[in-house]
Amino acid sequence: MSSTFPRRRFLTGIGVGAGASALAATAATPAAAGSRQPAERSAEDTPVAREIVPFDGPHQAGIDTQSQAVAWVIAFDVKEGAGREQMRRLMRTWTEDARRMSRGEPSITELEPEMVAKPANLSFTVGFGEGFFDAIDRRDQKPDWLGPLPAYSRDRLEERWCGGDVMLQVCCDDPMTLSHATRYMIRNAGTYLDLRWIQDGFLNANGTRAPGETPRNRFGQLDGTVNPRTEEEFDEIVWIDSGPEWLRGGTSMVIRRIDMLIDLWELLDRKGREEVVGRTLDTGAPLGKEKEHDPADLELRDEFGLPVVDPKSHMARSMPADGKPGLQIRRRVYQYDHPPQPGSAESEDTGLMFICFQKDPLEQFDPIQRRLDEEDRLNEWIVHIGSAVFAIPGGTREDEYWAQSLLEG
Amino acid sequence: MSSTFPRRRFLTGIGVGAGASALAATAATPAAAGSRQPAERSAEDTPVAREIVPFDGPHQAGIDTQSQAVAWVIAFDVKEGAGREQMRRLMRTWTEDARRMSRGEPSITELEPEMVAKPANLSFTVGFGEGFFDAIDRRDQKPDWLGPLPAYSRDRLEERWCGGDVMLQVCCDDPMTLSHATRYMIRNAGTYLDLRWIQDGFLNANGTRAPGETPRNRFGQLDGTVNPRTEEEFDEIVWIDSGPEWLRGGTSMVIRRIDMLIDLWELLDRKGREEVVGRTLDTGAPLGKEKEHDPADLELRDEFGLPVVDPKSHMARSMPADGKPGLQIRRRVYQYDHPPQPGSAESEDTGLMFICFQKDPLEQFDPIQRRLDEEDRLNEWIVHIGSAVFAIPGGTREDEYWAQSLLEG
Repeated sequence: MSSTFPRRRFLTGIGVGAGASALAATAATPAAAGSRQPAERSAEDTPVAREIVPFDGPHQAGIDTQSQAVAWVIAFDVKEGAGREQMRRLMRTWTEDARRMSRGEPSITELEPEMVAKPANLSFTVGFGEGFFDAIDRRDQKPDWLGPLPAYSRDRLEERWCGGDVMLQVCCDDPMTLSHATRYMIRNAGTYLDLRWIQDGFLNANGTRAPGETPRNRFGQLDGTVNPRTEEEFDEIVWIDSGPEWLRGGTSMVIRRIDMLIDLWELLDRKGREEVVGRTLDTGAPLGKEKEHDPADLELRDEFGLPVVDPKSHMARSMPADGKPGLQIRRRVYQYDHPPQPGSAESEDTGLMFICFQKDPLEQFDPIQRRLDEEDRLNEWIVHIGSAVFAIPGGTREDEYWAQSLLEG
Repeated sequence: MSSTFPRRRFLTGIGVGAGASALAATAATPAAAGSRQPAERSAEDTPVAREIVPFDGPHQAGIDTQSQAVAWVIAFDVKEGAGREQMRRLMRTWTEDARRMSRGEPSITELEPEMVAKPANLSFTVGFGEGFFDAIDRRDQKPDWLGPLPAYSRDRLEERWCGGDVMLQVCCDDPMTLSHATRYMIRNAGTYLDLRWIQDGFLNANGTRAPGETPRNRFGQLDGTVNPRTEEEFDEIVWIDSGPEWLRGGTSMVIRRIDMLIDLWELLDRKGREEVVGRTLDTGAPLGKEKEHDPADLELRDEFGLPVVDPKSHMARSMPADGKPGLQIRRRVYQYDHPPQPGSAESEDTGLMFICFQKDPLEQFDPIQRRLDEEDRLNEWIVHIGSAVFAIPGGTREDEYWAQSLLEG
């Protein structure tokens, strides 16, 4: 897999034209004169609408893609009686629809082309759970690591956020485009798949983050500081380069739903919060350091000879026990925040849609999670309530559909 | 009320500095070299984070303000035993917190100033339901029109989306700032108010709409074409200019929760959808016309002598029966789209958070809604499930708090 290439965002010709004519139309409306609507924003300020994440390539989109503002992850089960032939049909349709919508073009059966005219970095990622390989009668192709993660002592998993035979991750910088695109894909799956669960999440909006800026989570922490960034790091940590053809250039995805007990968190003072995490809240630097990306020093002592970084802090516990590097994952985390259900004891339903990608979840994610489960001061304020693992096929050429070599093999 | 002035967005000095230094920091990280993260976006592309909607003025923000990308509307009931003195304290605290957060500044008790550093057009709007005037023992100050709307024959109202003594609307172009700000305000209300309901909604994201562009709803329609735009129109339609001091420069707010039956809607073909609405889906023009803002002509006939616009279409029924202008409202509509509840018969939980502002809901909103309730082809695909009316006090001077003259009077 040396043929990796960076996905680039670019502007569509069509999109640019549409933007320009929209501006012209606006200028022509009588309402523009004497308007109290702020008009400092020009068409040049709306490039996000026209940005595109290329669909085809050696890897699927939505993995090394810079996180878009909003995301839905949808898990399905294969319907009774649907097999390899049906999954082939579904993947062919889904791939073509996703490919077109990614470009801001309507799919063949689209009745509302206006709803996909703002791709805004729309991306699609497909994955398969354990049950998929039974459904298509190809158990021989199931990766060894695919299945439920080992049970962790602090897990409080709810069935409604776990498992699934087929996974679709859809990310976008515009919630309206996302809403339409997810709906479209779900509807087209209806013949073959049953909906199992949907999780939705958000980040700081596009246009509010500088390039490379790490987003914050609802505990105020910069979330995603340690992450592969270069092609070499992605090759080493994320992309699978051996085994079955369909999985090359692919990866594994872990999704954990983590409830954040913000009512309790807010009882801590600022210093307390920083000690629990092991990093400062403002810059995200490891305690005792200055900048977000400074390496942590667990040996640092304060004037009383006490450790500056609590060895039980989240940051310290996230680091490998033996000091070896390599236990890394590609974190691509979203936040959720729903109005609380009536009658709920908590004042909010907020937390993390924790998503990570790595070659092997048992070799990379599990050891980190085991250490955190054993001991992590942050555990007092978080509860893992959902868990699933999916195998993510490699990318596509323009004439291919998702997982073609698996389904035609 | 001739002293209205347009609210302007402007950039904070602090914000500009922060943006610039964030960029510098990014350039300095080793990760920037050989990064596969798209980096076409520069700090100039993130002005949204620093945009501010002024808090003080003759009117509250969030009414004539151009709709931000995301919104929460929160309804509370006044706790048993809380009265005028408690509401005075709450409004003083809330006003000060909202005023500061609107500027991107932390409030006095804020432990996470980073979470409000991206105001992104954050705005707050407060309103009062009928019960508020009982709680503060000022029934004499209750506007005549304040109370539940008349029952409409097609209403299927659910108690959990109706009523409320106090209403807080929070809008922002960044979901993370919104999430923090709503949380902060809700927490500070806890001593005096009980949460009644929360509704959340979105639009096309900031950066995906050209200035003055009408957003689309989940039925694909341009939603909000007919709306006041000039100061004169706002004075005529929205701002109250008589009656009690605290209400001058204020208005009334109607919020209706409208479930959209998208499963059924999608059974219609494109022509059918346009006939139901009375407008084309692409430009939003009235049928038989070319542009969105062209006036509708209900007399137009096609080659067979049949009406081009169905007199039972949504657009035709929304127009006043007697052809008189004046029955206008300021529509400020958001979309909601939640993952469906497990076991739900519908494949989506999507619809409109329909919000409108007008001098008098009984004189302006009710006649329109009565006509639509009587007959509107769109009724087959929508269900009103929530309803509330609030009195919106006028704006504040910098040394005032919300509804001060009501609470100190």
